[in-house]
Amino acid sequence: MSRTEILIVGIGGMGVVLAGRILARAAAIYEEKEVVQTQSYGAEARGTAARSEIIISSEKINYPRVRKCDILIAMSQEGLEKYLPYLKENGILVYEKHLVKKIPISEKLRILGVPAIQIAEKKVGNRLVANIVIISAAIGFTKIVSEKSLKTAIADIIPEPMRKTNLKAVEEGIKFLREVLNQNS
Amino acid sequence: MSRTEILIVGIGGMGVVLAGRILARAAAIYEEKEVVQTQSYGAEARGTAARSEIIISSEKINYPRVRKCDILIAMSQEGLEKYLPYLKENGILVYEKHLVKKIPISEKLRILGVPAIQIAEKKVGNRLVANIVIISAAIGFTKIVSEKSLKTAIADIIPEPMRKTNLKAVEEGIKFLREVLNQNS
Repeated sequence: MSRTEILIVGIGGMGVVLAGRILARAAAIYEEKEVVQTQSYGAEARGTAARSEIIISSEKINYPRVRKCDILIAMSQEGLEKYLPYLKENGILVYEKHLVKKIPISEKLRILGVPAIQIAEKKVGNRLVANIVIISAAIGFTKIVSEKSLKTAIADIIPEPMRKTNLKAVEEGIKFLREVLNQNS
Repeated sequence: MSRTEILIVGIGGMGVVLAGRILARAAAIYEEKEVVQTQSYGAEARGTAARSEIIISSEKINYPRVRKCDILIAMSQEGLEKYLPYLKENGILVYEKHLVKKIPISEKLRILGVPAIQIAEKKVGNRLVANIVIISAAIGFTKIVSEKSLKTAIADIIPEPMRKTNLKAVEEGIKFLREVLNQNS
């Protein structure tokens, strides 16, 4: 992997920006990659469309840049529709299965639906960690960073008492992915 | 002001990314602007070149974007030289007076030198808040956000016991600017 661009989109309050910060930290500090992370501010407070973009590279990242993304993680229908044009045609789409109903028909895209809110609610016991469930499933699917780097970054950023809940969300996200892969193999 | 792009550059450990987050929050939450903030991750830990970019707009910010910046805040010579080409020719340059020795000769640029580290050390008592001193002087100079919005954002982001020191840094930065403006009027 020389350079990967990831876009996480959703609604303010879902933790899109926090998920981006965690992913950026996992890659930069624990995998020693060059990372540039971009976020829209204010949406978390206003409940409007939110997005976080992370560029991970093994080499220096030039400034400024415009590129299509390799991985789109969509936690809202609006976000999917708005940012799908920025996904490479052979890219990876990971979407929240109950919030995104209409997904594109494509032979080239790799597509994974994750019932992240349901998993967060029923398996972890807190729907607020749906953001972590979906990025964990995406990480299992794409190997952007290791599970260990992700967990270490979470432990740095998230204080107790939410730390344990977030780490459990990682495990459930990755467990879900393993089950999907086993069903399909 | 319809759209302003600010670039803060320096070395990891100077708090370039934190200064950007504070400015972004001040504009997004307390002045209800649209804000997109971009940061390089990892430099803080590695002590290499760090940058933070903030776009503040009264309207929706399109994605993706490539623009020259309106304001460059340079806390290192290397940062100034690398990013000066991205400053608009009639832009504003704010630089750390003891770390940046060679500044461009230009009739069009507005240029302000701030002895931010000296002020942080001698007036505030902690050189770590030089980042806040320099952005405060820049804010007084450019009116990107109000002093009140800046202070409220700092109070949100910085926990005690460093909160008071950071708020004092805002006051000293703005006081420095007033003295400069008085000398020149």
